[in-house]
Amino acid sequence: MTSFPDALPARTVTDPDVRARYGVDESLGATAPEHFEVVRARDLADVVDVLRWAHETGTPVVPQGARSGLAGGSVALEGGVVLNLEGLDTVVEVDPLESLAVVQPGVLNADLKVAAAAQGLFYPPDPASSAFCTIGGNVATNAGGLGCIKYGVTADYVKGLQVVLPGGEVIRTGHRTAKGVAGLDLTGLFVGSEGTLGVVTEVTVKLQPAPEPALTALAVFEHLDAASRGIVALRLDRHRPSLVELLDGPTIEAIQAIADFGFPSGAEAALVVQSDRAGHTAEDVLRYAALLTDAGAIEVAVADDPQESDALLAGRRALHHALEAKGPHFIEDVCVPVGLLTTLIAAGRDISARTGVEITMSGHGGDGNLHPSLFFDADDQHSRERAEAAFGELVAVALAMGGTITGEHGVGSLKARWLRDEVGTASIERQRAIKALFDPRGILNPGRVYW
Amino acid sequence: MTSFPDALPARTVTDPDVRARYGVDESLGATAPEHFEVVRARDLADVVDVLRWAHETGTPVVPQGARSGLAGGSVALEGGVVLNLEGLDTVVEVDPLESLAVVQPGVLNADLKVAAAAQGLFYPPDPASSAFCTIGGNVATNAGGLGCIKYGVTADYVKGLQVVLPGGEVIRTGHRTAKGVAGLDLTGLFVGSEGTLGVVTEVTVKLQPAPEPALTALAVFEHLDAASRGIVALRLDRHRPSLVELLDGPTIEAIQAIADFGFPSGAEAALVVQSDRAGHTAEDVLRYAALLTDAGAIEVAVADDPQESDALLAGRRALHHALEAKGPHFIEDVCVPVGLLTTLIAAGRDISARTGVEITMSGHGGDGNLHPSLFFDADDQHSRERAEAAFGELVAVALAMGGTITGEHGVGSLKARWLRDEVGTASIERQRAIKALFDPRGILNPGRVYW
Repeated sequence: MTSFPDALPARTVTDPDVRARYGVDESLGATAPEHFEVVRARDLADVVDVLRWAHETGTPVVPQGARSGLAGGSVALEGGVVLNLEGLDTVVEVDPLESLAVVQPGVLNADLKVAAAAQGLFYPPDPASSAFCTIGGNVATNAGGLGCIKYGVTADYVKGLQVVLPGGEVIRTGHRTAKGVAGLDLTGLFVGSEGTLGVVTEVTVKLQPAPEPALTALAVFEHLDAASRGIVALRLDRHRPSLVELLDGPTIEAIQAIADFGFPSGAEAALVVQSDRAGHTAEDVLRYAALLTDAGAIEVAVADDPQESDALLAGRRALHHALEAKGPHFIEDVCVPVGLLTTLIAAGRDISARTGVEITMSGHGGDGNLHPSLFFDADDQHSRERAEAAFGELVAVALAMGGTITGEHGVGSLKARWLRDEVGTASIERQRAIKALFDPRGILNPGRVYW
Repeated sequence: MTSFPDALPARTVTDPDVRARYGVDESLGATAPEHFEVVRARDLADVVDVLRWAHETGTPVVPQGARSGLAGGSVALEGGVVLNLEGLDTVVEVDPLESLAVVQPGVLNADLKVAAAAQGLFYPPDPASSAFCTIGGNVATNAGGLGCIKYGVTADYVKGLQVVLPGGEVIRTGHRTAKGVAGLDLTGLFVGSEGTLGVVTEVTVKLQPAPEPALTALAVFEHLDAASRGIVALRLDRHRPSLVELLDGPTIEAIQAIADFGFPSGAEAALVVQSDRAGHTAEDVLRYAALLTDAGAIEVAVADDPQESDALLAGRRALHHALEAKGPHFIEDVCVPVGLLTTLIAAGRDISARTGVEITMSGHGGDGNLHPSLFFDADDQHSRERAEAAFGELVAVALAMGGTITGEHGVGSLKARWLRDEVGTASIERQRAIKALFDPRGILNPGRVYW
């Protein structure tokens, strides 16, 4: 057995600064050890080589896309080899008749959308990180995003995969046909498995006809209760919005702190709502606006052209920058029944008031999928621990509501502590046993998910 | 260890004629042995009792719904216990706000649709057997149906399950929330597993807002090529039809043989197309009709009200009776890329001409999902074997096209022989290993799928 990196193709990163960047992702809680190697794979053979060598030597492998994950899923946690797949970035095929695309895992979500749109088609999954996250990462986490209330999540669009298993065996799962039920659904098993079962090297996804450009309505609420009534009314409308985003009061304040996006002061919540229904966008957003007014909105603005639509989204778009400007924070992710979303937000406020941890709460309101951001002083370990503890309290509330510890970011390394509370011991035992079937030496993404 | 049936609750069928009926399903190729027992479960405890006892004694258990399956998936193949779940037939909950329903497995597909519709909601999966098949069976086979071109299949709607495992352990999978990615997707693993991993005792499904009542267009083609062009045009239309059903020439003849549904003689194909798009059904079917005319249809009829719409569907509705009237036949199920569907039909004709086996071909044209019916003389074993062999040839053609051995009926016992040809040895080995994790003694539905 040759030692690393001689055993591997000339894809290894040698510059220590560059290597260090590949050791972490966008999460703040997980850190890389001093020693690890980075391989930037360029083709299937590179992936096979790494997984053969790592399996034989018992070396940890961390599969990695754009490192935009927020749960520590692609941090070089236990050393070994980071296997970066950004270089496998070819859109292999877009087939309008079969309504599918075949892409390599390093293709950006936004680039797949563009390739589909060039043929009048649409790839719906739409993480907020669309411009820089990869399809491989989307598949690994079963990524959601902004359009899920109407279009569902990544798993709803993955038809088939090519996967390299530890040891280097290459398998194909799923089918290219519109339907197919031959045998167990291994495709679904790999989607959302966060790099713990195999390394995805090709993805076949469903596409659909492109929708209309969306129009937007924006409603501001003095009270959280009214926003809750608004979400309920939107959920019960006969024509499902294509987007329902919620911003809570502290989020609105943070956004207004970087520029005046026109939000009144003291608002407890805002809802951004869109319709992309062909021929009905204007009618839909007017109806949504009326529903939100009835629910008790104090201000409602309705776009009647794409420029206005963009303008109404500007506040929501500034969210990430506004939170960055506010200071270091964990971007979290829980999902509860839609009817309990504002109860969860109220619980978050109580936790914030009691612990002194600043918490902004926003997210995909129409799905009950909340992204609390918990702020801390980066120079104060106690402050960070208090923020982590406050999120732990919020997780407990979400679970008690029948919610989940992660709606779309994944369990990664940071949330593994809570998985048992959600799914129970019997389920975890089965998950680990399935993991052991595909990865008997436990080399793939150790310390993640069900560890 | 007490012997059967003393060990089990008083749900056991003692009448031998009744018992015999539970030994088979709607498939013609699989037969039951002389000795087997039938338990009609009434609640979760019954299922737990059976699976505990069977696991301890190593007794085969065949989970069973309405026995409408066509692949031998619920035949008492190797004896043991048939565990019928029709009695678990409660719609537990319909929640419009969360857009979900919770049902027991014995609920009929049509009854779930009715329960959803009562709250303005819609459960899309729509097997042709909707009126008499159960949700449990739909989950077991990942059933498709007529609306898949627009709405997808059963797996696209299953959010969570309660499952009893061999030994009697009860687990829950999935989530009630709109999104959830915590851990491996065990729900997806059970959907389509054809009763080989566990017995589903409760199903949580997604619902969506109800669509418009559909309008219909019917087009008749002198030549198969023109029908193919028609399907392509429909697939590329910006507004996906909610139904695209295809009937080939021999199917049309069989339908006309039982009553005059107005089809001209000598037609090689007909397409039935629907739109249920709110506010646009009339416009859509007129546009579809124009596309089909352009493609070369010799007759096109368009419904402009629900009564006419029903009338245009009458021929398609008579299909099952027409084929029954024609004689004993295997109803088969393959799926190929949509662009190759008529090539598959042409291959089927050649096989029919060469072997003398009468074959009608119809199905979900918009999905490339064909249901060939192969006729035989029930009193002539050689005739039956010739029909089976002819289907084997058609399977080989479908696989060579990148198709699947089953689009929606399942592998069952009748198609297990071809699974390896489709998915390969590596995949089958993993599937069997997963099976062994959940069912180490191999009691659940032996002889099925990956056996």
